[in-house]
Amino acid sequence: MDFRELEREMIRTRRDFHRYPEAAWTEFRTSSIIAERLERLGYKNLRVGRQVINPDAVMGRPSEDEISEHIKRAVMQGGNLGWIKEMNRYTGVTAELDTGVPGPVLALRFDIDCVEVCEDESSEHRPVRENFASMNTNLAHACGHDAHAAMGLGIAEMLIARESFLKRGKIKLIFQPAEEGCRGAYAMTQAGIVDDADYFLAMHIGGALPTGTFGVNSLGYMATTKLDAKFTGVPAHAAGSPSSGRNALLAAASAALAIHSIPPHSAGKMRVNVGVLQAGTGRNVIAPNALMKLEVRGSTQEISDYACSRAVEILNGASVMYGTDLELIKTGESLTAQGNEDLAQLAAQAVKNLNIFDFIFDSTKAGGSEDAAWFMHRVQERGGKATYMALGSTITAPHHNGSFDLDERAMLYGVRAMTAIAEAILNN
Amino acid sequence: MDFRELEREMIRTRRDFHRYPEAAWTEFRTSSIIAERLERLGYKNLRVGRQVINPDAVMGRPSEDEISEHIKRAVMQGGNLGWIKEMNRYTGVTAELDTGVPGPVLALRFDIDCVEVCEDESSEHRPVRENFASMNTNLAHACGHDAHAAMGLGIAEMLIARESFLKRGKIKLIFQPAEEGCRGAYAMTQAGIVDDADYFLAMHIGGALPTGTFGVNSLGYMATTKLDAKFTGVPAHAAGSPSSGRNALLAAASAALAIHSIPPHSAGKMRVNVGVLQAGTGRNVIAPNALMKLEVRGSTQEISDYACSRAVEILNGASVMYGTDLELIKTGESLTAQGNEDLAQLAAQAVKNLNIFDFIFDSTKAGGSEDAAWFMHRVQERGGKATYMALGSTITAPHHNGSFDLDERAMLYGVRAMTAIAEAILNN
Amino acid sequence: MDFRELEREMIRTRRDFHRYPEAAWTEFRTSSIIAERLERLGYKNLRVGRQVINPDAVMGRPSEDEISEHIKRAVMQGGNLGWIKEMNRYTGVTAELDTGVPGPVLALRFDIDCVEVCEDESSEHRPVRENFASMNTNLAHACGHDAHAAMGLGIAEMLIARESFLKRGKIKLIFQPAEEGCRGAYAMTQAGIVDDADYFLAMHIGGALPTGTFGVNSLGYMATTKLDAKFTGVPAHAAGSPSSGRNALLAAASAALAIHSIPPHSAGKMRVNVGVLQAGTGRNVIAPNALMKLEVRGSTQEISDYACSRAVEILNGASVMYGTDLELIKTGESLTAQGNEDLAQLAAQAVKNLNIFDFIFDSTKAGGSEDAAWFMHRVQERGGKATYMALGSTITAPHHNGSFDLDERAMLYGVRAMTAIAEAILNN
Amino acid sequence: MDFRELEREMIRTRRDFHRYPEAAWTEFRTSSIIAERLERLGYKNLRVGRQVINPDAVMGRPSEDEISEHIKRAVMQGGNLGWIKEMNRYTGVTAELDTGVPGPVLALRFDIDCVEVCEDESSEHRPVRENFASMNTNLAHACGHDAHAAMGLGIAEMLIARESFLKRGKIKLIFQPAEEGCRGAYAMTQAGIVDDADYFLAMHIGGALPTGTFGVNSLGYMATTKLDAKFTGVPAHAAGSPSSGRNALLAAASAALAIHSIPPHSAGKMRVNVGVLQAGTGRNVIAPNALMKLEVRGSTQEISDYACSRAVEILNGASVMYGTDLELIKTGESLTAQGNEDLAQLAAQAVKNLNIFDFIFDSTKAGGSEDAAWFMHRVQERGGKATYMALGSTITAPHHNGSFDLDERAMLYGVRAMTAIAEAILNN
Repeated sequence: MDFRELEREMIRTRRDFHRYPEAAWTEFRTSSIIAERLERLGYKNLRVGRQVINPDAVMGRPSEDEISEHIKRAVMQGGNLGWIKEMNRYTGVTAELDTGVPGPVLALRFDIDCVEVCEDESSEHRPVRENFASMNTNLAHACGHDAHAAMGLGIAEMLIARESFLKRGKIKLIFQPAEEGCRGAYAMTQAGIVDDADYFLAMHIGGALPTGTFGVNSLGYMATTKLDAKFTGVPAHAAGSPSSGRNALLAAASAALAIHSIPPHSAGKMRVNVGVLQAGTGRNVIAPNALMKLEVRGSTQEISDYACSRAVEILNGASVMYGTDLELIKTGESLTAQGNEDLAQLAAQAVKNLNIFDFIFDSTKAGGSEDAAWFMHRVQERGGKATYMALGSTITAPHHNGSFDLDERAMLYGVRAMTAIAEAILNN
Repeated sequence: MDFRELEREMIRTRRDFHRYPEAAWTEFRTSSIIAERLERLGYKNLRVGRQVINPDAVMGRPSEDEISEHIKRAVMQGGNLGWIKEMNRYTGVTAELDTGVPGPVLALRFDIDCVEVCEDESSEHRPVRENFASMNTNLAHACGHDAHAAMGLGIAEMLIARESFLKRGKIKLIFQPAEEGCRGAYAMTQAGIVDDADYFLAMHIGGALPTGTFGVNSLGYMATTKLDAKFTGVPAHAAGSPSSGRNALLAAASAALAIHSIPPHSAGKMRVNVGVLQAGTGRNVIAPNALMKLEVRGSTQEISDYACSRAVEILNGASVMYGTDLELIKTGESLTAQGNEDLAQLAAQAVKNLNIFDFIFDSTKAGGSEDAAWFMHRVQERGGKATYMALGSTITAPHHNGSFDLDERAMLYGVRAMTAIAEAILNN
Repeated sequence: MDFRELEREMIRTRRDFHRYPEAAWTEFRTSSIIAERLERLGYKNLRVGRQVINPDAVMGRPSEDEISEHIKRAVMQGGNLGWIKEMNRYTGVTAELDTGVPGPVLALRFDIDCVEVCEDESSEHRPVRENFASMNTNLAHACGHDAHAAMGLGIAEMLIARESFLKRGKIKLIFQPAEEGCRGAYAMTQAGIVDDADYFLAMHIGGALPTGTFGVNSLGYMATTKLDAKFTGVPAHAAGSPSSGRNALLAAASAALAIHSIPPHSAGKMRVNVGVLQAGTGRNVIAPNALMKLEVRGSTQEISDYACSRAVEILNGASVMYGTDLELIKTGESLTAQGNEDLAQLAAQAVKNLNIFDFIFDSTKAGGSEDAAWFMHRVQERGGKATYMALGSTITAPHHNGSFDLDERAMLYGVRAMTAIAEAILNN
Repeated sequence: MDFRELEREMIRTRRDFHRYPEAAWTEFRTSSIIAERLERLGYKNLRVGRQVINPDAVMGRPSEDEISEHIKRAVMQGGNLGWIKEMNRYTGVTAELDTGVPGPVLALRFDIDCVEVCEDESSEHRPVRENFASMNTNLAHACGHDAHAAMGLGIAEMLIARESFLKRGKIKLIFQPAEEGCRGAYAMTQAGIVDDADYFLAMHIGGALPTGTFGVNSLGYMATTKLDAKFTGVPAHAAGSPSSGRNALLAAASAALAIHSIPPHSAGKMRVNVGVLQAGTGRNVIAPNALMKLEVRGSTQEISDYACSRAVEILNGASVMYGTDLELIKTGESLTAQGNEDLAQLAAQAVKNLNIFDFIFDSTKAGGSEDAAWFMHRVQERGGKATYMALGSTITAPHHNGSFDLDERAMLYGVRAMTAIAEAILNN
């Protein structure tokens, strides 16, 4: 295997994805290119879009009109038309490499969506300088999922190259849409994607770890629920007939203040945030509408559930206070996650043997929430083992910041590490 | 009739009542002295306390323990023990003067309770200087009901003196408790006190009118409802277990802000106020209790009802928001009031004939609300006529202010005016 | 004068303006067509755009980029390129008809901007059925200024036709931009547009008056100030580092609640409204920005000023509370207005003589606010006389509603009325 | 030493203090009895009240009138008149036992104030049954400081009895007032009370530990600041002249909501609480006053300071919003505390040697805040060592609950433990 060539190809792929970022549930171009490449590599059992997603379990999906717009853009930006059709208005790809010998089933998961953030347009930002900055307004791969997708294809290639070294079992590659907002993993687990998996691995690039380091067990992911709250009141001329209106703006304002005052929980860390509030139609009209985007998190499921139920109570109460209607939509959800210690140790040993990392951490501390928790829970509850790993890559700005960029050299390290771990698991 | 002697006696009476002010529903001393005097003057059909009040219609009454304490105080401050017993824990007095000849029934109403305000203790305040300031902490006759009661007794005396001039009909004197907070009149009307009245007159001393003026029709009284809202939450140590508490203080704070933002009404004047908020037990405890005293008013019944229903909606919603229990108690209520034009004209003519006023107004503008509206509505809905009059008396500070005092000379003017009008009505 | 032909032409003109509505400060197409028509009619002293606007007095103007976009659109939609250039990035037109004989100067004002509202697209809406509905997204002539502009041109034509009947003085036609939001009149008065006027007339079509009626004195316009408040906080990851953020969304929410609870004023009617609130960048980010659009109004200048100063105080306080920066921008302002009684009577007489109206009102009751107040104050403070008139026209929905349409027949009535009044003034 | 007799005496003493509880800064009876007993035991260097308190460093002291009332009560309830005079309106006592041989100075601290809570009056509560329930309304020893004071005297007695076993150094007994609300320790440290101490020990009875257990190092005390915020507005009649008022109730309500929404800190635990809010004078008056009692806490000083500065910012902002005046009074403050590991180990060994405890904990987890932190910081910053210990005693209800009672047998264990540790330190 020519690692230099593999690295160059991954960089090309990553930069292509970076140039055409697609947000949650709209990864039509990205998915179609992944499918095309996997097919070319000889992967079987290729399943895409509607085949890997349970629509009843989908949260936070754009409207059908928006989906149609995004499909058009994907085609115009060079997506594979055949695969896009096959996807049937949903995104995501899975593929399998089967040794043909009975043995463990290992699922490897790569998330592929971008973030809704405006990319830095200054020439200090390498994607601008080297001409692979986002072409899509207000969208950017500011979390590194472009590298995740590129590494997934790199691993796919490397596994084919090393197929003869795999003694038994099966590897399933999962390219997951809609990780941002914690939306995609649940819909994939509900389509049964990991129901046959004995092992599950996922990995995040960047974070606090510099290039040359690796962590085998990311701990501390918080359980979370994301909600949209829509208040609907009654418009009225603010000077002429104020008493005939029902003020959705004030209902939302009152709820926002109260949600931020949900008491902390004695059992651990809790977070709540009303991140977005959009209300009103005109300066001189009693505001008849308000949209609030909020999230709650807890270091345990109990705490997250506590915060969520308090928030829902507040939203309902505020709606009663102001005589508005309230619609609540769950747009995302994830769980706490706990990697299996023995699997993490096996991974650590396999990576150590590669002799390419300066430092390997038994565990690393995660912030925030991670959608992969759904896969981990599903595999673990069926008796399997899972771990979430951290791939060091020196970054230029915090994740989700418009100036985020990563050290592309880390991708080869990641591919080699994950392949080594996969071999260790199948051949164990 | 010796008007000088009558005036001196009224001043003595007014100052005695001023020294021993009694708040709503606790006018035991005042009522007993009124009854004693009316009996001595020869009035028949004397009814007191429980006999003139419908307990089921009583709003905003102190607890039975407090009532017991106030009865004790009344006795200690020189109340008539026999009459206090007869009152059976309620206050108020009515009496009748019957000509024996069939004719119109005229009800005259005087309110007798004080205000919960601390009287000015400086020597610039005449009650202090002349030694009739309030002996009862935080209570004061700062609205002039001491003069109203004294005038009621003055009229009672003058009517007896002029009994032979009354040709027909009957005069009913009503000494009403609990005008403050709009509580007493409703309970009296529900006891049927004015069900036989063809005419109703009441009068307020002071306001914006100087001594020597008189108004025969006070317009603009606002409909009002007074509410106490009690939020009950769950206490919890604020540092140790905040999530197990339910914060009544924040529920009340949120409700207070929202109540003050009830939109104005296009049909007229609206007022809302949360005047008092008392919440919490200790600095480091999630506040488990909150008491809020509020009122709404409207220049029409519809506006007052609108504001009240919005306030109740807000209180309920805030309680839902914070997971508290809510108890709502109506502690007072009154109506808009509209005097009968022809009765007012008759009164104006009668008063003009006395030749004692510098100026007589066809109508005057009232602020706030007035409990007598209940009597007026009751009389008018049965086909009778009513008006609320204004007796000029130069005052030293606004009503309800601790430095309020009035010009006692106005009392004689008031007594002569009302007696003249009464004669005109009965002899008409 | 062929009134049928004049009416047909005004309907054509009105429908053309209706099809291409332009919002405040962007009336480039409209202004250029007006200028072109006035020039063709032979009007002198034609001044446009930058020549009639004092840029230092402009409130609520779009950004220069937006202005450029609107100029492009105006050209593409058939605006007169020469006049657009002459306008120098500002809008509005004035023209004069001078008898050459010394005498009174009469200013007639017509407002020409549209409303930012989405026009009804159903076939029940006549503009849709008859194919003159708005071509510009979210813009519509839902207040009748299309008719105002068409009538202005109609009057211009009729004045030329009747020029020989005008004995002395001068008529100045003012086509004012940006009436919506109370922005344009102030900038025109500050350019001295009415500094030579002895008389001022303006007129609104529609309202509560049916076709065939006319009012010569609209009373009750409220003084108003429009503000944009921009809070700028500090973004932070809501889970990772909440304490490093500064929450602009909560600052705005807190301010909104407080602004709606500004106490009513005892001296008259007050209105406040926070009509729009837009805050936040993403669900999981402490919101670093909030834009609030608000307005205050008062039935007197004092009340409006009171409400405005309280609102500003609240906005500043909320900014302190949440540690944000605050930028306040006045985007509009108007005054109360009081027409001159004698001018109104002169107008009533002139209109009565036409014998075309079923009913002429001495005064009518206005709701809301009206930008023309600036002109009226300016003329009156220099000793001139002004009145604001009401032209009945049966409408299909309230003003500013997407389904608003008017009875086009009223336009001829309006033109004849205003011409008659103008003649009466000049020939008086 | 007869331990049975010592125990009986401590129980008598504790129950006497329990019957006459005195709140922070009013422990005149308690202090005087302690001084009397220490004098009788032969202690030297007895200093009391004003001699041990730096008045400039006193927080949260009642008014001088209230102090006078409490002094009267102390005398009436059997306080020692001579010592009360000597105290000069301040409370607290210190005394010394000096071996005369140069050596370490050890300070032992006992807090003596009660809690402002109403004691359970049911017969299930032992103080009621056995007749030592609180005689002082709304005051109770519901935190065990009665036992602390009794143990302090027990230790005083035992040290005298074992004086010959003390080889060198000096023991200073500190009876500290005003621990509740974190007020007294600071004022004592600022009087220099522990400036000569090389070692410092304090101990709390009860908590989560059952009788027969002991902990030598209580960890996790939170830094805290207590504030009173007084808003002063302008009263106005709510119906007649609302616009002339300034609403302190709404200012406080707005601040309360915002204070509870201070974002959590990423560096550790934060707590804020507005525990008490009292506002307004009457239902129909714009509330001119509001008193808010609040506290903030943090698991580090930085976090507590962060929360405090945010709260102050909010209070100032709310005051600006509503045009009120604001007065802020710091009524209490404490620090985080960290016991010295080696001193704790020395203590553990000394206690183990007694062989009277079933279980000895190296460290225990504290909740809330503890005033002794001031002493610990002062001693440690001068190079000394300190630890805060936990004395197991099975309790009947949580601390600060009206039903709180403790297992009095634990007092003897505590006295023996602390005496043993003291000997170990001096003789080390």
